[in-house]
Amino acid sequence: MAARGQEPLIAQQTPSEGAEDDRIEEEDALLTGQPAHKQASTTAFVKKRWHEVGLFLWALLATVAVVVLAVVYQNTKDVAGGDSPNTAAPSGKRNLIFMVSDGMGPTSLTLTREWRQFSEQLPYDETLILDQHLIGQSRTRSTSSLVTDSAAGATAFSCGRKSYNGAISVLPDHSPCGSVMEAAKRMGYTTGLVVTTRITDATPAVFVSHVRRREMEDSIAMQMVGETHPLGRMVDLMFGGGRCHFLPSSANGSCRKDDIDVIQLAQDKGWGYISNREDFDNLGTSVELPMLGLFADTDFPYEIDRRYQDDVYPSLEEMTRTALDALSAASADKDQGFFVMIEGSRIDHAGHANDPAAQVHEVQAYDRAMAAVLDFVRDAETPTLMVSTSDHETGGLATARQLHAAYPDYLWYPGVLANASHSASYLDHEYHQHLHAKPTPTGDETVAYIAALVSETLGIHDLGQDEIENLVQDPATAAYQFADMVSRRAQTGWTTHGHSGADVNIYSSDPSAADKLVGNHENTEVGDFLRYYLGLNEEVERVTNELREHMKITGSSWLGEVPGAGERLDGQDHIEHYTGDHKKRSVCDVGGH
Amino acid sequence: MAARGQEPLIAQQTPSEGAEDDRIEEEDALLTGQPAHKQASTTAFVKKRWHEVGLFLWALLATVAVVVLAVVYQNTKDVAGGDSPNTAAPSGKRNLIFMVSDGMGPTSLTLTREWRQFSEQLPYDETLILDQHLIGQSRTRSTSSLVTDSAAGATAFSCGRKSYNGAISVLPDHSPCGSVMEAAKRMGYTTGLVVTTRITDATPAVFVSHVRRREMEDSIAMQMVGETHPLGRMVDLMFGGGRCHFLPSSANGSCRKDDIDVIQLAQDKGWGYISNREDFDNLGTSVELPMLGLFADTDFPYEIDRRYQDDVYPSLEEMTRTALDALSAASADKDQGFFVMIEGSRIDHAGHANDPAAQVHEVQAYDRAMAAVLDFVRDAETPTLMVSTSDHETGGLATARQLHAAYPDYLWYPGVLANASHSASYLDHEYHQHLHAKPTPTGDETVAYIAALVSETLGIHDLGQDEIENLVQDPATAAYQFADMVSRRAQTGWTTHGHSGADVNIYSSDPSAADKLVGNHENTEVGDFLRYYLGLNEEVERVTNELREHMKITGSSWLGEVPGAGERLDGQDHIEHYTGDHKKRSVCDVGGH
Repeated sequence: MAARGQEPLIAQQTPSEGAEDDRIEEEDALLTGQPAHKQASTTAFVKKRWHEVGLFLWALLATVAVVVLAVVYQNTKDVAGGDSPNTAAPSGKRNLIFMVSDGMGPTSLTLTREWRQFSEQLPYDETLILDQHLIGQSRTRSTSSLVTDSAAGATAFSCGRKSYNGAISVLPDHSPCGSVMEAAKRMGYTTGLVVTTRITDATPAVFVSHVRRREMEDSIAMQMVGETHPLGRMVDLMFGGGRCHFLPSSANGSCRKDDIDVIQLAQDKGWGYISNREDFDNLGTSVELPMLGLFADTDFPYEIDRRYQDDVYPSLEEMTRTALDALSAASADKDQGFFVMIEGSRIDHAGHANDPAAQVHEVQAYDRAMAAVLDFVRDAETPTLMVSTSDHETGGLATARQLHAAYPDYLWYPGVLANASHSASYLDHEYHQHLHAKPTPTGDETVAYIAALVSETLGIHDLGQDEIENLVQDPATAAYQFADMVSRRAQTGWTTHGHSGADVNIYSSDPSAADKLVGNHENTEVGDFLRYYLGLNEEVERVTNELREHMKITGSSWLGEVPGAGERLDGQDHIEHYTGDHKKRSVCDVGGH
Repeated sequence: MAARGQEPLIAQQTPSEGAEDDRIEEEDALLTGQPAHKQASTTAFVKKRWHEVGLFLWALLATVAVVVLAVVYQNTKDVAGGDSPNTAAPSGKRNLIFMVSDGMGPTSLTLTREWRQFSEQLPYDETLILDQHLIGQSRTRSTSSLVTDSAAGATAFSCGRKSYNGAISVLPDHSPCGSVMEAAKRMGYTTGLVVTTRITDATPAVFVSHVRRREMEDSIAMQMVGETHPLGRMVDLMFGGGRCHFLPSSANGSCRKDDIDVIQLAQDKGWGYISNREDFDNLGTSVELPMLGLFADTDFPYEIDRRYQDDVYPSLEEMTRTALDALSAASADKDQGFFVMIEGSRIDHAGHANDPAAQVHEVQAYDRAMAAVLDFVRDAETPTLMVSTSDHETGGLATARQLHAAYPDYLWYPGVLANASHSASYLDHEYHQHLHAKPTPTGDETVAYIAALVSETLGIHDLGQDEIENLVQDPATAAYQFADMVSRRAQTGWTTHGHSGADVNIYSSDPSAADKLVGNHENTEVGDFLRYYLGLNEEVERVTNELREHMKITGSSWLGEVPGAGERLDGQDHIEHYTGDHKKRSVCDVGGH
């Protein structure tokens, strides 16, 4: 508007003799604050001139005001959230830190906040870091179900598209979709993935690989290092677990079905590789990329257990700080910044296990990682945005549980979680070690062992006879039973060992920059935002087209077989990882449907 | 800035002969788009004049641009949320509509949205009205528990203070705290309460009464009409149920313990009174206040049942529209606007009943009431703000439920809710009618009756033999059993028949005006905001002081007895209202703790 109103008026001016000089001098006067030197010879002339000068000054000042106001208005609009969407796309060098709290529903926050307040004797309004950055919620359904799995949930982030449960950046028609990280890498961004589960698990996998079934983790590993990815290596830094998918089947600790040494392949392609705490600590702040850090055969231990093995496994916070330093240093002299995905992977696992004590420590570890991210955002020279969300809720967690037929009390007991020093998964492992000891323990020894184990590690001293008997008779479900001991006493409820369809929270370091995610949004809008913020809308489409072209030329065997109709792809890894398809004790089956 | 830049420049102008006329004509030309008529006599003069005119037009247009931009800038700043908090306190005449979705947790939204999408064959991104206005979440704990009841939850709204479960606008020291509605009334606002439960229930009660135990509903009724409230009548309009607490014990439909006719007392004090649909419909858009509308003895029927009795009970949406018209008309010629609390009261009850079919209709009714509110906000001459939140979550609802020991599918079935045409409460009532029929039905007749009832009203045609036997053997828990038939088949989970501690959502018609509530907040901050928005910080304190002064002078018998240590005040009304302290079938008790 300013430009349109201004130009024709200037064009209408017919400079009179000396007018141009006058104007220049007046402009000088205006700019320097010094009066113009020219003297006029008659009063009439002076009046006339001053009339014109006045008019001119008015016009000039008003025009300057227009320009200033237009600029201020534009800036104000840029930071205005809510009803006035940010129409100007982000520009300039920038970093994006995308955090994923796998399986964390809104109630996980209540649970963790109140456990922490209890444990640390904090006032009721002392919140988590997360709480201070809530900006909205995300709707999570996939194309195949109202209850998504992590693969479809993360594909919504990577491709900005809904797909079926089990899909790793492929669409419902089983063709690949370009991911925001692939596009970022190709446009010069430095890229990274930081997780506490297998780096080949669904959430990290979708960003740099494409398969039709999430369980194809051997194939995902090969794509991740750039060996079999149609476009080559798409990621510069990976920290996490899942080493077993990179080791040849002949090696100790391998879970590959073939004898390919993916680590060797990666090193041949220029990757640096580290696999232990000491090497991690020696990385310092400037890491030569690409760097592959695999610190566990499969998943990291839960944080509630890891804290006692701090010399073996780095924490999520530590990996976050190191990754941010590395990515920042590597992109310091480049035109583009970095894009990293950081996942609190095992919040989800604690939900599957229905283990509230493990969960609060996982959420707190994520909260600490977010604090590290916010430190980085605050100090970074390159503008950096943090966006955080979950792919889905896990477990149907509630901070209240009715244990008996009597009308329930309105309360839950965070102190029970505070008393627990280990996860149910840890107790399960210890219990099975006991059962397999030589010589085989007697029944009495096992009963005594259980009582001592539960007392020492869960702080539960009132075990019922039936609870002990169940453990003796059904050790296969011991992990669920230990978790349930804690859950019941804390009066925390769960409705499933699987996922639920609840909306999940969205957080950001800057609600203005992330204003497209303020309020309630479809999970694909999170994906849309990632590519929008990085300015990659067109490049993602180009990546998609190239991947499809590759599929046409080479066939689609690299994507795996098309799933059969009704074939189940979700949740299978969790069954394998926990206690199998067995009797579940925390939800009972009263017949009927 | 515009005004400052403009005036001295205009003052500098020395009008030359005819200049004023010229300017007027040029302005006409500018405004009408028609050329000015004046003819100049010489080319030089024309050039000179056009030079000046050009300068002038430039100045004028630039100045207009300054003014327009300044106004636009100011408006943009006003709607900017997020990082730029609205520091200027609200001013001028304004209305506040505070909506409370009692017992609605975040997952109720997922449940209702997906049921509606299924029922109406809508696309996956078709959301509720509520979804489009999410601004944050509220933390709900009370002083006596991490799991609040509605009394403490609503006292956080009315007084902006935490208190104990069961407290009706009294503090943990059992002294009264002034409410935002009392302060509003005293400062000239017109006030109202609209609910679908008893108007004497905790949420409406806290705004205009003070008692130490929420079950003192007879006393609350007396305070509400102004009979025993220390400061007189504090509310101008009340629509809801709970007539039984206003009728003398000798009257039909009374539940008062004394023989006081509160309706007569109210009418003697000038209240209008209506008690049926016909009178409600005849109210029109301009209602003489104060007006008491009590349309049910206790609670309204659930919306899922009420829709078949639309000639008896108005909907929440209808009461909302009528109340807003009435309050708007009554305050039209006053200096102050209105303040009304509108509650979707029975979302909570459907949660207590663990009845997902009843719940989705309750949430939809609330969503429609919100649409009515937003219509009003859009069209209102007086600036009007809508803020909506819940006091707590009820039931520990999850949109996923593991029914068997096998690892659960990732899904839930909204179609089961769509098939249900009545609440479990309705079926319970029908079933008991059948059981008490004369002659007493035979066992075979009862079995046939159950199968027919469930088939016709819940659309469930595969009842198991055990489900029928449980109903025959335990009719006292029939309501829970009917609800569980729906819940299990839909695979919706619940962890309790009571409340849970989950954070609940906050919504607003204007995130900028309500920017103090954007993000995650303590429930008392919602209360703080209500009084802040209405400009009542000091008046609330004055009310508190006067109430305490009154207590000093007259004693505190009007507040009721101080609860005993450990005495339970929450949840009792729900036991009474549902099926008592009996065996609960949807959560089983596997011994132990």
